[in-house]
Amino acid sequence: MAKELKVFRAWGSPFSFRVELALRLKGVSYESFEEDLANKSELLLRYNPIHKKIPVLLHDGKPIAESLVILEYIEEAFEGHPILPADPYEKAMARFWAKFIDEKCTLALWMSCWTQGEAQKGFIAQSTENLNILEDQLKGKRFFGGDSIGLVDIVASFIAHWCGVLQEVAGISLINEEKHPNLCRWVEDYVNYPAVKEFLPARERLLAFFTAKKEAIMATKAPVYK
Amino acid sequence: MAKELKVFRAWGSPFSFRVELALRLKGVSYESFEEDLANKSELLLRYNPIHKKIPVLLHDGKPIAESLVILEYIEEAFEGHPILPADPYEKAMARFWAKFIDEKCTLALWMSCWTQGEAQKGFIAQSTENLNILEDQLKGKRFFGGDSIGLVDIVASFIAHWCGVLQEVAGISLINEEKHPNLCRWVEDYVNYPAVKEFLPARERLLAFFTAKKEAIMATKAPVYK
Repeated sequence: MAKELKVFRAWGSPFSFRVELALRLKGVSYESFEEDLANKSELLLRYNPIHKKIPVLLHDGKPIAESLVILEYIEEAFEGHPILPADPYEKAMARFWAKFIDEKCTLALWMSCWTQGEAQKGFIAQSTENLNILEDQLKGKRFFGGDSIGLVDIVASFIAHWCGVLQEVAGISLINEEKHPNLCRWVEDYVNYPAVKEFLPARERLLAFFTAKKEAIMATKAPVYK
Repeated sequence: MAKELKVFRAWGSPFSFRVELALRLKGVSYESFEEDLANKSELLLRYNPIHKKIPVLLHDGKPIAESLVILEYIEEAFEGHPILPADPYEKAMARFWAKFIDEKCTLALWMSCWTQGEAQKGFIAQSTENLNILEDQLKGKRFFGGDSIGLVDIVASFIAHWCGVLQEVAGISLINEEKHPNLCRWVEDYVNYPAVKEFLPARERLLAFFTAKKEAIMATKAPVYK
């Protein structure tokens, strides 16, 4: 009997998307458990008591949290499409760029879309610098992972799909054809890669979700939007 | 001929300490290059253009930055003392706790020692919560890595050695025998582990360094100390 494999996820989360995409690339069947992030399940709190966040991967009763940690686990526990290169140096480079995107790019891009005034200017400047670095990284490469998608592409899913929606909601433009031809080509290739395309959350639904979130924030004048 | 292996490091840095300790545990010979952090070398800026920080490991002309990425590379590129468990699930747990210490604990502990007033109270509360979590993790275990030191212990070097010095400089007490008997026992065992003991920066020199830093900050009333 196959071991239990379950992802605690949330619709529209780029973090649980990473985990589920990796499992799909590996061709592994799994169950998913949709979390209500406003009212988290007892199971989620039991399986990730430290961060209390999705995604959590439950494999044969053993829980793993933190999307980058889960991706490494999936690479080691399952055969199929390689997520990391075999060569130790190339593997280190993939980990370096995945960490850069996870820790530096994602937050600055997110905050560029949810702030205003001087704070927004600062986050936009950081985002522009980060995007220029990624633009350079894609020179002469179809994907960050080379000819096929790997760890860095998976971690960058937010940039490929979510970021455009958020820019539209915020009325800003961070990634464009003129400044980032490689990145724009990568976005096209990535979102049209079959395993990605068939699983991305629908753009219109994301747009409606984030538009409603923006309106709610503006109505309450919550600090995040100052 | 052995391949070139060089660590760009700084005396007193817990981050380059991680890398050098891992190489020492592996029994690998390496050269070190002492950086002046106030006037970084052209080589460092060339090898780590993204973060411009130590440590950098240069192996056969190829640079790797970010201490956690370097530790994984060392584990894969060299034989000797295992830094990570062989089992994929145990490996995921080691990566989870290393990330927790690197991202959550170290910053909160550092800021607890360099802030005052309300800001300090907040960082002390975070640090206490984090230390209680680590205290639980050490129940029934000699090291975070089990019977011998591993990735989590190496990443936690800051807590074992630097933290006590900083607490003395700041006049606060975060880790103590009464609340954290497991953690205190771990500190003793860890700093007395031969490979660690012979390489830790001298406590008195660290104390003089951080005392001078505190005095300089107080004299200039720099924002970090507000």
